[in-house]
Amino acid sequence: MTPAAQDQKLKGKETISEQNNNHEVSVKYRVTVVGSGNWGSVASKLIASNTLKLTSFHDEVRMWVYEEILATGEKLTDVINQTNENVKYLPGIKLGKNVIADPDLEHSVKDANMLVFVTPHQFMEGICKRLVGKIKGDVKALSLIKGMEVKMEGPCMISTLISEQLGVNCCVLMGANIANEIAVEKFSEATVGYREDKEIAQKWVQLFSTPYFLVSAVQDVEGVELCGTLKNVVAIAAGLVDGLEMGNNTKAAVMRIGLREMKAFSKLMFSSVKDSTFFESCGVADLITTCLGGRNRKVAEAFARSGGKRSFDELEAEMLQGQKLQGVSTAREVYELLSQRGWQELFPLFTSVHEICIGRLSPSAIVEYSEHTPNFSLVEGSAQLI
Amino acid sequence: MTPAAQDQKLKGKETISEQNNNHEVSVKYRVTVVGSGNWGSVASKLIASNTLKLTSFHDEVRMWVYEEILATGEKLTDVINQTNENVKYLPGIKLGKNVIADPDLEHSVKDANMLVFVTPHQFMEGICKRLVGKIKGDVKALSLIKGMEVKMEGPCMISTLISEQLGVNCCVLMGANIANEIAVEKFSEATVGYREDKEIAQKWVQLFSTPYFLVSAVQDVEGVELCGTLKNVVAIAAGLVDGLEMGNNTKAAVMRIGLREMKAFSKLMFSSVKDSTFFESCGVADLITTCLGGRNRKVAEAFARSGGKRSFDELEAEMLQGQKLQGVSTAREVYELLSQRGWQELFPLFTSVHEICIGRLSPSAIVEYSEHTPNFSLVEGSAQLI
Repeated sequence: MTPAAQDQKLKGKETISEQNNNHEVSVKYRVTVVGSGNWGSVASKLIASNTLKLTSFHDEVRMWVYEEILATGEKLTDVINQTNENVKYLPGIKLGKNVIADPDLEHSVKDANMLVFVTPHQFMEGICKRLVGKIKGDVKALSLIKGMEVKMEGPCMISTLISEQLGVNCCVLMGANIANEIAVEKFSEATVGYREDKEIAQKWVQLFSTPYFLVSAVQDVEGVELCGTLKNVVAIAAGLVDGLEMGNNTKAAVMRIGLREMKAFSKLMFSSVKDSTFFESCGVADLITTCLGGRNRKVAEAFARSGGKRSFDELEAEMLQGQKLQGVSTAREVYELLSQRGWQELFPLFTSVHEICIGRLSPSAIVEYSEHTPNFSLVEGSAQLI
Repeated sequence: MTPAAQDQKLKGKETISEQNNNHEVSVKYRVTVVGSGNWGSVASKLIASNTLKLTSFHDEVRMWVYEEILATGEKLTDVINQTNENVKYLPGIKLGKNVIADPDLEHSVKDANMLVFVTPHQFMEGICKRLVGKIKGDVKALSLIKGMEVKMEGPCMISTLISEQLGVNCCVLMGANIANEIAVEKFSEATVGYREDKEIAQKWVQLFSTPYFLVSAVQDVEGVELCGTLKNVVAIAAGLVDGLEMGNNTKAAVMRIGLREMKAFSKLMFSSVKDSTFFESCGVADLITTCLGGRNRKVAEAFARSGGKRSFDELEAEMLQGQKLQGVSTAREVYELLSQRGWQELFPLFTSVHEICIGRLSPSAIVEYSEHTPNFSLVEGSAQLI
């Protein structure tokens, strides 16, 4: 079904339900994008092209922008609203005239009933705290954020944080999504992960889908979200292989072992995680993209070329203009979770990546596996893990 | 368990079973490799390093070589036996002194009880015919050959051909295996596919495993073999994306859609095929290797760069020094099978690749999908296909 036809169908349904409540107005969704970096801007562009076409959405897409003063002395929000371009984080791309940049977080969300979160993950806890009591009661949320918080009882996913702090339904959208490539409308795919409500997931699919951006939904929010998080650890491993000049065979093998560990780790953390999720865009495709390009791969390559003599911190500072490498911190967080449980041997790749990052092992340890298939039968109730 | 320990265990078992038959000799396996190209030579090297170490194998590995007279006037077999190098197909690599090149096919196999087939697939039917009645009764076979024969009733896999023509058990070994990288002992993995007899599969695992070449076995001979065959069709698609300069996102998406179609096609052809096989080295890892390097990818890239104006035949002749592109012929064979059944719409990528190869569609059609998820529910009994 085309997005337009789907929209008509949903709209029909909503109108009927409204009539039952003796209201004859049709529900129109208002969308706010919380975040306006590279990916946030592209997400706003995708959404804005659809809200114009789909009758069940208000045309306007509000985008919360962390205000900055540009070198010209102008405010970033003013320039976005005048030019329809995020000149700082997505220069050269028109976002659509219906994208309205708003520097006031609370103001930007107050009328929205669909909230898309796309900020660096370390800011989310603070943003959620600010939004408590400031959003409408029936808001649906979607997280595009990769990363997790590690707690003793296991990983706390960003979608859970949003869901719990704001008391809202939160889906996730992940995939092989290099923002700049989607910005110029190159063909790509993405995966929406949802917990229970398939209709909400379909609404998100509809809001993002274009002929060049194919979105599908799977009922596995943790699986989709963990794919987006754990792939960065595998990208470090792939970068090490590149730096050691070990060739495509070895790189493919390391990526495969990484995918196996992503799957096993996710299933150990959340028994609801499905194998099939790893065949979706959020799984194998995002892993491929991240291990072919991407900054985790790149810095790890430089690290291996230096023979492990230069630290990740040093290379990061030199190569990434202040951005942080998510793979290194995720590897540490995963290692913490594994060592709390004594599971390091079950995850030789994840374990090695962390130990290489902190200098305990040399880069070449990335391909030194004494055992092929870790014995997961030692973990209770995990017969079908890999 | 290390290969040596496994060997001891197996040896113990065999000795016991021999004792029960009132023979007190331990069984020693003799291995012959039928084929001596690039991959055949590397396989011989891997095997020869293990037969020296493992007591349940005779040291000698016989390698059938299709005799050629070199530019120096010498016979290829003589040079291999003098230098321990296949100077024509794997120059610079010592195969091991226990590899004996034999130009006589029938002679090379007569004492073997383990036969490894690694020839171009179009020669296998003729080789099998020559071997009928010339091999020992209890021979076990392993096919490293990628490709299939298409018949009206479905694909006939090479392992089935060997099995039926010679009346022997035939396993397969596939994986992300660029011969030249394994030759220089870079880390890699492979998958053995077996039908029923796990002990035979373990024997093959033992024969090939080294610290840099990790082999695991799965009970899914058709799944493993179809991975090795179908990946070449996906590599054509990946090469087209490279030629169109569409970036890593699009390439990853096309590889993922290709993997989905490999899985769905395999399961339609053989209901025994398992999803998990596609997570093995023969699945996702071999797909990655083939789509990063490989000649199918390379020629398809050149084809797309020419805007489809130069034919695959012409580019093949120019770029591959007489080698044929397996992806183009496999795409045609797959297309035949799909069109016999009216299933083209279920496999948009496989179908497009063939139609692009024959000039019916332009290269850019590789990313023009009108439907995201093909509706497999139209095919009887296929609810769980994708």
